Amino acid sequence: MAVQDVVHRKTALVFDLDGTLVDSVYQHVLAWREALETEGVELSVWRIHRKIGMSGGLFTNMLLRETGTHLSHERIERLQRLHALAYGRVSRDVRPLPGARALLDALTDADIPWAIATSGRMDSAGPVLETLGVALDRVPVITRDLVKYAKPDPDLFLAAAASLGIPIESASVVGDSVWDMLAAQRARSLGIGLLSGGYGMEELERAGAYRVYEDPADLLNHLDEVGGRR
Amino acid sequence: MAVQDVVHRKTALVFDLDGTLVDSVYQHVLAWREALETEGVELSVWRIHRKIGMSGGLFTNMLLRETGTHLSHERIERLQRLHALAYGRVSRDVRPLPGARALLDALTDADIPWAIATSGRMDSAGPVLETLGVALDRVPVITRDLVKYAKPDPDLFLAAAASLGIPIESASVVGDSVWDMLAAQRARSLGIGLLSGGYGMEELERAGAYRVYEDPADLLNHLDEVGGRR
Repeated sequence: MAVQDVVHRKTALVFDLDGTLVDSVYQHVLAWREALETEGVELSVWRIHRKIGMSGGLFTNMLLRETGTHLSHERIERLQRLHALAYGRVSRDVRPLPGARALLDALTDADIPWAIATSGRMDSAGPVLETLGVALDRVPVITRDLVKYAKPDPDLFLAAAASLGIPIESASVVGDSVWDMLAAQRARSLGIGLLSGGYGMEELERAGAYRVYEDPADLLNHLDEVGGRR
Repeated sequence: MAVQDVVHRKTALVFDLDGTLVDSVYQHVLAWREALETEGVELSVWRIHRKIGMSGGLFTNMLLRETGTHLSHERIERLQRLHALAYGRVSRDVRPLPGARALLDALTDADIPWAIATSGRMDSAGPVLETLGVALDRVPVITRDLVKYAKPDPDLFLAAAASLGIPIESASVVGDSVWDMLAAQRARSLGIGLLSGGYGMEELERAGAYRVYEDPADLLNHLDEVGGRR
């Protein structure tokens, strides 16, 4: 291929939701803690935090291993219901992270395609997306309901890129968790880490983040570093 | 000094409380979030997490800087009261971290002196110490009430070593937060980090931890690495 045939790769951004656009991670963590406690499973809170954002199935497998508890199919379903109940009681207090709306607006204004891909289901993500002002008829939102395997499998991000009609190799994934960064690598995308989910910078870098910012506001301030040409 | 005059330095351990011996950090974080929200101060939850464990006075100074809000003396007192109320509602759910009681018992059995030093006040630490089974008439417990400056100042740890009648230079400080590690360095002690407060390993290492373990159970398993000769 000749130099003049190189086509400029315009960036698209695929966003995780919890901890990336909305400030909901710590509430999810304590809701899981409450659900587990109700089911008689004792697990330290930091260990729950470290697994948040992966698929529910892998999350419960991990529990099974780390606690040595047997979790029947019924018990796993009960756990997920208890978590949804506990989270539902506090979700009205969940706010968008600083700069989240401004960042999404700036991308739209600059004609940079973006989508949302979350390991959560639409019934828990829906109200949060409303708080964020995301128009579901215009923005591709890929939830757990739409793919067979959630993070750290790459399917959610691949589906988001497909919805945008963009090759995943020219998109970047913005996420707060190690699972987002691993899934981004498996999708052959690039991972942009945010500290707003409460993970450390080095954890995200070691999971493959090619750049880490504090939160959406900080990413917006540095958008030019990661392909956000405006 | 001749080689034969070297006196073996027997280790003593000074423990932080929240996130180090008891699993209370995430509850404290969300209690601060609720208190701040009530006072109309918006701050992302991860930023609160990153400041937890430092003295209340420095914590509110940090808020003042990071949010650009003016916090009057009355408002700071109200914030601290609101936090205590919110934490009080969930503190009955707080449990010792895995291995905490076994670790303290093993130290006592091995005649290794230990003490507790916390940035919290006795009225919030008291019930938690009870859960841990700490006998206040036998174990030195230094709370915020007893020193002028809390972490990252070294006073709490210096007071704990003094209570044990041990030079701080032969003691190690066990803590979960960056502030514990900085205060340990300022005291010329050594910091042993635990991941159980939800900070990343590298954050603790970069703050000076000379060794990092997962939680009290993991430290107990590796006690010989840090002077716990039994």
